[in-house]
Amino acid sequence: MVMEQSSSSIREEDDGSGSGRKMKTEMMDVDSIERIFESKKVPPWQKQLTLRAFVVSFILGIMFTFIVMKLNLTTGIIPSLNVSAGLLGFFFVKTWTKFLGKSGLLKQPFTRQENTVIQTCVVATSGIAFSGGFGSYLFGMSEKIAKQSNEANLAQNTKNPSLGWMITFLFIVSFLGLLSVVPLRKIMIIDFKLIYPSGTATAHLINSFHTPQGAKLAKKQVRSLGKFFSFSFLWGFFQWFFTGGDDCGFTNFPTFGLKAYENKFYFDFSATYVGVGMICPYLINVSLLVGSILSWGVMWPLISEKKGDWYPADLESTSLHGLQGYRVFIGIAMILGDGLYNFIKVLRHTLFGLYYQFTQDKTKSDPVTGNSSPDLPSLSYDDQKRTRVFLKDQIPTWIAIVGYLTIAILSIVTLPHIFHQLEWYYIAAIYVFAPALAFCNAYGCGLTDWSLASTYGKLAIFVIGAWAGGANGGVLAGLAACGVMMNIVSVASDLTQDFKTGYMTLSSPRSMFVSQVIGTAMGCVISPCVFWLFYNAFDDLGIPGTEYPAPYASIYRNMAILGTEGFSTLPDKCLTLCYIFFGLAIAVNGVRDLVGKNVARFIPIPMAMAIPFYIGGYFTIDMCVGSLILFVWTKINKGKAAAFGPAVASGLICGDGIWTLPSSVLALAGVKPPICMKFLSRSSNVRVDKFLGS
Amino acid sequence: MVMEQSSSSIREEDDGSGSGRKMKTEMMDVDSIERIFESKKVPPWQKQLTLRAFVVSFILGIMFTFIVMKLNLTTGIIPSLNVSAGLLGFFFVKTWTKFLGKSGLLKQPFTRQENTVIQTCVVATSGIAFSGGFGSYLFGMSEKIAKQSNEANLAQNTKNPSLGWMITFLFIVSFLGLLSVVPLRKIMIIDFKLIYPSGTATAHLINSFHTPQGAKLAKKQVRSLGKFFSFSFLWGFFQWFFTGGDDCGFTNFPTFGLKAYENKFYFDFSATYVGVGMICPYLINVSLLVGSILSWGVMWPLISEKKGDWYPADLESTSLHGLQGYRVFIGIAMILGDGLYNFIKVLRHTLFGLYYQFTQDKTKSDPVTGNSSPDLPSLSYDDQKRTRVFLKDQIPTWIAIVGYLTIAILSIVTLPHIFHQLEWYYIAAIYVFAPALAFCNAYGCGLTDWSLASTYGKLAIFVIGAWAGGANGGVLAGLAACGVMMNIVSVASDLTQDFKTGYMTLSSPRSMFVSQVIGTAMGCVISPCVFWLFYNAFDDLGIPGTEYPAPYASIYRNMAILGTEGFSTLPDKCLTLCYIFFGLAIAVNGVRDLVGKNVARFIPIPMAMAIPFYIGGYFTIDMCVGSLILFVWTKINKGKAAAFGPAVASGLICGDGIWTLPSSVLALAGVKPPICMKFLSRSSNVRVDKFLGS
Repeated sequence: MVMEQSSSSIREEDDGSGSGRKMKTEMMDVDSIERIFESKKVPPWQKQLTLRAFVVSFILGIMFTFIVMKLNLTTGIIPSLNVSAGLLGFFFVKTWTKFLGKSGLLKQPFTRQENTVIQTCVVATSGIAFSGGFGSYLFGMSEKIAKQSNEANLAQNTKNPSLGWMITFLFIVSFLGLLSVVPLRKIMIIDFKLIYPSGTATAHLINSFHTPQGAKLAKKQVRSLGKFFSFSFLWGFFQWFFTGGDDCGFTNFPTFGLKAYENKFYFDFSATYVGVGMICPYLINVSLLVGSILSWGVMWPLISEKKGDWYPADLESTSLHGLQGYRVFIGIAMILGDGLYNFIKVLRHTLFGLYYQFTQDKTKSDPVTGNSSPDLPSLSYDDQKRTRVFLKDQIPTWIAIVGYLTIAILSIVTLPHIFHQLEWYYIAAIYVFAPALAFCNAYGCGLTDWSLASTYGKLAIFVIGAWAGGANGGVLAGLAACGVMMNIVSVASDLTQDFKTGYMTLSSPRSMFVSQVIGTAMGCVISPCVFWLFYNAFDDLGIPGTEYPAPYASIYRNMAILGTEGFSTLPDKCLTLCYIFFGLAIAVNGVRDLVGKNVARFIPIPMAMAIPFYIGGYFTIDMCVGSLILFVWTKINKGKAAAFGPAVASGLICGDGIWTLPSSVLALAGVKPPICMKFLSRSSNVRVDKFLGS
Repeated sequence: MVMEQSSSSIREEDDGSGSGRKMKTEMMDVDSIERIFESKKVPPWQKQLTLRAFVVSFILGIMFTFIVMKLNLTTGIIPSLNVSAGLLGFFFVKTWTKFLGKSGLLKQPFTRQENTVIQTCVVATSGIAFSGGFGSYLFGMSEKIAKQSNEANLAQNTKNPSLGWMITFLFIVSFLGLLSVVPLRKIMIIDFKLIYPSGTATAHLINSFHTPQGAKLAKKQVRSLGKFFSFSFLWGFFQWFFTGGDDCGFTNFPTFGLKAYENKFYFDFSATYVGVGMICPYLINVSLLVGSILSWGVMWPLISEKKGDWYPADLESTSLHGLQGYRVFIGIAMILGDGLYNFIKVLRHTLFGLYYQFTQDKTKSDPVTGNSSPDLPSLSYDDQKRTRVFLKDQIPTWIAIVGYLTIAILSIVTLPHIFHQLEWYYIAAIYVFAPALAFCNAYGCGLTDWSLASTYGKLAIFVIGAWAGGANGGVLAGLAACGVMMNIVSVASDLTQDFKTGYMTLSSPRSMFVSQVIGTAMGCVISPCVFWLFYNAFDDLGIPGTEYPAPYASIYRNMAILGTEGFSTLPDKCLTLCYIFFGLAIAVNGVRDLVGKNVARFIPIPMAMAIPFYIGGYFTIDMCVGSLILFVWTKINKGKAAAFGPAVASGLICGDGIWTLPSSVLALAGVKPPICMKFLSRSSNVRVDKFLGS
């Protein structure tokens, strides 16, 4: 089994551009996978949904929610955790069944269908942590973030997080996406034969686990995952002791000197981002590094020399009218430029694809996907068998339609009670267009492995924000609308991915659907609770320069402000620079597509470059260290690096992520770390020594 | 080839008790080594002494002098560097000859004899760094050390280091040992067939390098040595940046918390001592740890509670009348107890051995060494050939005798000019007994791999110190006498070890002798210069609690004071405790010998336990980390750990050791590190933050 590259697909607070698009799925070295599994009976769909699967999903769901939440609040870059979910799900249930098998209580063997159910459920649960917007639109509503921008701070434009309304909100909006794609799954999977790279990769992984030699490798992978999990957890624990104060501890280690530290260039010893760097493609990491050098290494120092000229010198460092404004809005311009380009690109693909699907002879190969689909009668053994299973368990279309309408009406009634600024007709308007956009997103994702959820969300910010107007709480209305939209389109693409995985593992669409529903429901409760824990445990959540700056919360809020109030508030020359970088993002993307893959490998991705603009380069150093480790490892032993790299990376990410659970509990309990590891320049140290001595 | 355990023989500022005594020399898997080398001609002795050999020796000599000096001045624990010397010598000359071979200029191939010459020369050079007493008696004469003890501080009892007299002193005393054993080499090597474990191990190493497959392994070993050398050097360099002030940087990292740090329990990230820990046997490291827990974990905290009762509360922390006195004198008591026990033991062995040698039939196996020496006529092929070569090149006995007498007279005349307190008849007395003691030491070392040099040195401190009396500068006279004695006996055992190595590699005794003479001469210049560099570069040399506390300098000085002034100056109950620990050291040694090897493996060695009594446990943590790494490595891959462990350890030691060269140059040039990595308790940090903010 080879860990597919799509495991490296990245879902940051934007559409994950430049992720493992069009991954090369390396097939197993056999003609037919299903012939290997011939002897194994496919259990009926009810039997695929076992209690143990959901218990394991619940545990893993909590774990991954912690990880995603931490990533949300630190940099907003979230790697795909599908591989970890599949691996750990396999490990847990395998251990469980082994234990039960020994005690003679085992009633049902562990099947790949059950594994798929777990994977689907965990992804659905942790997906809410992303689409719930705890690092973006939802947190962007809070006073904490509002205070930083000095704009639209009135009560009508803020809404502080609270467990009650967050859970209600998520329950209302998260299930619509699910229902909107159910009727279309056959078209996507069977008729269009879309690739869904991540879903396919996960399916390969799960299939390989359940072959004998795959199980052996999986066991080894789990062992190295466990080793690095422990290491990373203990490292987090060890680091904690030295963080007794602001700017203390390893996270503030001026690895390249104090000057570089001031410009946010340092290695912050974060096991998480080293792991993320190992999972992300080299190009992403290099793009991030290029972006941080361009911004913090060149542009910001240059702009700060214009202090007093381009912008007033007496501003607070966090004011958007000063340097911070350039950081935020130039970043937004690049993100929007990249988003627009890719939106148009994927839309074009979608339309062309649909056009071909409906006008051409179905038996011909699909020119858009490049996925030569063989004639139906000459369908391969695998496809025949999979299609048969996939079509066996239907989900009646009327359930989907009735469900969608019911929830839509329910939410049109309820949501204005949560957000007074969000009029019912805004919501109705969103719900009219949502299914179409959900379909577009699911289709585009099937082609390119890209979920454009956050781009659709931004669209909603601008449209609804402008419609409502700044004076009428347009900022909050825009952010809330973003939430509604994002949840629908994001869940839609996730579910279709899972249907593909299910198709390839002979799992019933019904069990997939039920698993996704249960997973989403769990996520709607777990995610707000985990966020609530972070929110209460860490006082400086969302403040730039701290451990949890939650960069996208501020960016989203500022987008909403921009949408309602226009460009008038920007500092001098900022708009010009924004136009330049907006255009640059589009141009670079265009060039990337024109020059062909071989050259494009060396052209950085604008979306990735934009992220460090706002928060600085420190995490890009971590990620490049991760890349470097993987690179050297691959040079030394390619096979091992490919087989164990993702496991090691997952271990690093999970261990550090889980450490945030006890660390936030400690913070809540008021237990503070005993030591401060401080970094002083020699001259300040002399003063401090004198002070302490006296 | 297997790295023999004797590479782990340890030569700390005491007799290296508990080192790889009676190592298991794993022989090469062949019946006769010399048959493998049959085809290779043994060059005449003049050809064994090539210019390139001495150039390489000079370079390596400087490098190892730096390392030994650093070890001298930090903890006084010095592992055997023979393996590194052999390995690096091989590497340098091999590279050299390869290069010359390609350019067609190579006149003479690289032989194992030449390798032996290099190894001998390097060991002789770096040996002076130890026997020169820069971390013990010689530095103990300085005012810096004298000031700490508040006793015998008068000018007549101090002598500050200065390049001139140090070089003269070493030249005068270092060659006597060489000459004193030359006449006896045939008796030791051919007649007595003493083992000389370290010498034998080195010979095996060198022999194995020069067989084809040995060369391949050696190349790999050199590569991993080089890798860890670079790592360790760069780590030292990186650490340097964060040491801009007292108590700053990784060397003061309170790994186990601030409380433990105060009691000197922390991991100080020293690559050197991790490497030393990998080379030293587990028992040594565990003994050190037990010693530091016993002293800093139990005894000192308990004694400090008696403050004001057992000793005055208003003393400076460095005063020998306070807690520091307990630390120093209890440590000395244990060292003396262990030394006495082993002195008697080795002496007994020596006398018994000699008795058997002269009374028994020579053809019978030696009951003491356990080294069953076969009958002369039935001598193995290897031994026949080696004996023939060994006896071919004689060194006339009259040269040795004339040389000894000349130098003795010269030094009797000169030394009183350097040390006015040292009367000429003290020196004459030493020189009468010295050859006998040198012989004893060389013989004992051949049996047990133990050099008792420092024990003989201590003997001289007490005897000459008492003879001179405190009022007449007895402290200085004692320390100087110690130097004279130590140099003679130490060099004697080293040279005999080398004769053994030469015997086993078919190197001529003459070339060994010349190499040792040249090496010693180089050492007499290099060592004082390196010490001078340290002395000028680091202001706080010899002060407890700093980076270079030079613990033995203070211990030796205090022994001399004790010898001249008696026990009256000790704080309350200290003498009782000293008696207890003196007895304990003897008892534990006795038990270790009685219970047999299998149980003795688990009984700590008093000598090793005593070292952390004075300086604290931090370096024992490093060494235990080294042990742990080796232990885990051995568990994972025994073969690899055995073959590469010593290379990795040597790399760590050498890299960090060499870093001290640029670091002391930087210090001399007045370049100070830019950052201070400080560790503050949370409460002080709050105060400091307030102070810096205001």
